Amino acid sequence: MRLPPPAILAGLYAVLIILGGILLMLPAATAMPITWSDAMFTAASAVTVTGLVISDTGSQFTHFGQGVIMVLIQLGGLGLMTFAVLLLSMLGLPVTISQRIFLREDLNQTSISDLLVLVRGILKTVLACELLGVALLSGVFVPEFGWGEGLWQALFHTVSAFNNAGFALFPDSLSRYVGNPIVNLTIPALFIFGGLGFIVVTEAYGKRSWRAFSLHTKLMLVGTLALIVWSVLTFAVLEWSNPATLGGLASTGDRLWASWFQGVTTRTAGFNTVDIGSIHDNTSLMFMSLMVIGGGSTSTAGGIKVTTFIVLLLATVAFFRRSQQLHVFGRSIGAEEVMKVLALTMVSLMTVLVAIFLVTLSHDGDFLDFAFEVTSAFGTVGLSRGTTGDLDGFGRAVIIAVMFLGRVGPLTLGFFLATRSKPRVGYAPSKVYLG
Amino acid sequence: MRLPPPAILAGLYAVLIILGGILLMLPAATAMPITWSDAMFTAASAVTVTGLVISDTGSQFTHFGQGVIMVLIQLGGLGLMTFAVLLLSMLGLPVTISQRIFLREDLNQTSISDLLVLVRGILKTVLACELLGVALLSGVFVPEFGWGEGLWQALFHTVSAFNNAGFALFPDSLSRYVGNPIVNLTIPALFIFGGLGFIVVTEAYGKRSWRAFSLHTKLMLVGTLALIVWSVLTFAVLEWSNPATLGGLASTGDRLWASWFQGVTTRTAGFNTVDIGSIHDNTSLMFMSLMVIGGGSTSTAGGIKVTTFIVLLLATVAFFRRSQQLHVFGRSIGAEEVMKVLALTMVSLMTVLVAIFLVTLSHDGDFLDFAFEVTSAFGTVGLSRGTTGDLDGFGRAVIIAVMFLGRVGPLTLGFFLATRSKPRVGYAPSKVYLG
Ligand SMILES: [K+]
Ligand SMILES: [K+]
Repeated sequence: MRLPPPAILAGLYAVLIILGGILLMLPAATAMPITWSDAMFTAASAVTVTGLVISDTGSQFTHFGQGVIMVLIQLGGLGLMTFAVLLLSMLGLPVTISQRIFLREDLNQTSISDLLVLVRGILKTVLACELLGVALLSGVFVPEFGWGEGLWQALFHTVSAFNNAGFALFPDSLSRYVGNPIVNLTIPALFIFGGLGFIVVTEAYGKRSWRAFSLHTKLMLVGTLALIVWSVLTFAVLEWSNPATLGGLASTGDRLWASWFQGVTTRTAGFNTVDIGSIHDNTSLMFMSLMVIGGGSTSTAGGIKVTTFIVLLLATVAFFRRSQQLHVFGRSIGAEEVMKVLALTMVSLMTVLVAIFLVTLSHDGDFLDFAFEVTSAFGTVGLSRGTTGDLDGFGRAVIIAVMFLGRVGPLTLGFFLATRSKPRVGYAPSKVYLG
Repeated sequence: MRLPPPAILAGLYAVLIILGGILLMLPAATAMPITWSDAMFTAASAVTVTGLVISDTGSQFTHFGQGVIMVLIQLGGLGLMTFAVLLLSMLGLPVTISQRIFLREDLNQTSISDLLVLVRGILKTVLACELLGVALLSGVFVPEFGWGEGLWQALFHTVSAFNNAGFALFPDSLSRYVGNPIVNLTIPALFIFGGLGFIVVTEAYGKRSWRAFSLHTKLMLVGTLALIVWSVLTFAVLEWSNPATLGGLASTGDRLWASWFQGVTTRTAGFNTVDIGSIHDNTSLMFMSLMVIGGGSTSTAGGIKVTTFIVLLLATVAFFRRSQQLHVFGRSIGAEEVMKVLALTMVSLMTVLVAIFLVTLSHDGDFLDFAFEVTSAFGTVGLSRGTTGDLDGFGRAVIIAVMFLGRVGPLTLGFFLATRSKPRVGYAPSKVYLG
């Protein structure tokens, strides 16, 4: 029996989570004994690169425990990128390698040796980015913590950032570095790069010219830029005079850095430099919509993906312009693609709604906090309004399931939608009134 | 210059609201003077048949004031039904009248005399339903309040119910009749009938055989039944032991009646027999999803409409079954229709999200209550968790706008989508990765 690739991915992730949970239960991993529930939740959060934590990672876990979490993050992030690229290549959207890695549209299968070259290509990209990240962040952490601990901090936060995991070793995430330029540039650079996706990164590296880029890469670059500008500006405007967030910061410079950081972290990274539990209700709502959108395909990011959101917007705009065809950058997007977007979005929204429904079964009263928590888990973001520790056993189980679905689900659905068959029976068409 | 029909509808509604507001400001209309803001909010709520109220309609307004509200409800409800049917007939989906009113698919325009017959048909249906309603409800109200006041109560609640307005003359809506069989059967019968839509009602009356029904009617009947069963059962299960709602009722019979009533009222009617402010968070979430779905086309109901929701579900299911065609009851639904559904749903969700965002700008803290309020306004439902009176001026303006959009918007969009033109330029197709 041959399992479909997404089932293999889901199986591997489940095994990784269970192994990680067992390792985190070892006495050497924690400062104080933790429960199985704590260990499994942490492992699931790490493997799915979500970053929701029950208690402070830096003080709860020893260096060994932190190392386990870091390896889980790296495997989870890398595994996903590799699998995503492999799946796309199997779907007749081959990603193959000659001198540079690029997309070729005329090849229907990839050989094992091609795959090995591909994986090597991904590993080299990851290694290069992470080495650069460690070098830059050492400039902050080594002076503060000394060589040993400083390098460890730099390595952990680099891996966590590049894989969009959002795990930090401080109780308030990176709030202590709210005005630090190196942290404010390096960490976001790592997670934005990691969140663009392998296709975009290799195409940008290989082609270096806007005209030569594929539609996917163009949409990703323009969409990511627009989303960043929108979220940074909106966050600044909404929170500027909130004394518990931007309003409480010492200088205008710090406020601008914090607006930048919170604006870019929301779609999937999950680090924060101000207290997310104190942001306004409407800022939270905006964050929830960004968390659902997420990052790019074949990236370490979650969500329905930037391209899905763009197609959704384009389809809506097309209707208002009374055109039956979707087109952007001189290319059309077929009804087929729009249907996929519809299905993916519907299933995603349903998942989030059902999960909020289930979590609030046992947690009446703090609706916004729990809705935020669930959306964060679905987008594998990891931002929290402070309720992760308040979840009971059932709530934790739901959040673990949502993190898992948020990680494996969109890829599985994407695979499913891309391989579906042609219709066999024709039916007489009919109209339904919708207005 | 010829205005498009939806613009005429929107203009008429605006004029009706302003006139109604002026009438409600007359000293004869109220027990105590009210503000312009109160008067306009009440008029908008009545004309859009929403039913959100700032204070108790029964004690705030005199019989004259209540009469104004009743006439506004009747004009708002009738006007919408008539306009919806007229619009559909102009869109090549002609609704014409011979002996019985039915849909004919081969006529592209309707003459003025046809229209007059149509309006007479609608009026006759409405009159018949409302006379029956008054007769039945008099059996409850006349013994309690005497002939004059009792008949008035019966008339007001009948008009309010048939037009899905949800205005009641008691401070706690119909809670005092939580276990009364006549109220529990008559009021829901009126609003379910009014919420099915003119097309369904006339077809059911004219054809009387399942096989002869159009796809639209079949979908509406099956969808409405399924939604009612779902919402009644879920409400009963979730609230059965909530001491502030079902758990506080005297008998199991009352609990069952209350489950029935709350289950059917949520999609658009807006009456209630238990305290909506006390239902659980997850019950509120389920209610919000039902309020977005709403009732039927060419009815007095709001929301994206039951048929839109069904097509959305069918499209999603079709993808999971790997079929490229949507079909139900032996008929196919084209990609075109699915696109319309996508656009309508996207715009609706965006409207609700933006409105929640705007309302929470000035109301931090009770997120669920205000999200519920906005959703209720969009679906022109009128259920409230008790925050209508807490809205400030800006919040009221937003809710008025949302009620108006919720009423006129889907019809306008439906008209817009149905009349759009064919594409003129072809673009090379391209793929975008969405998973
Ligand atoms: K994350
Ligand atoms: K209503």
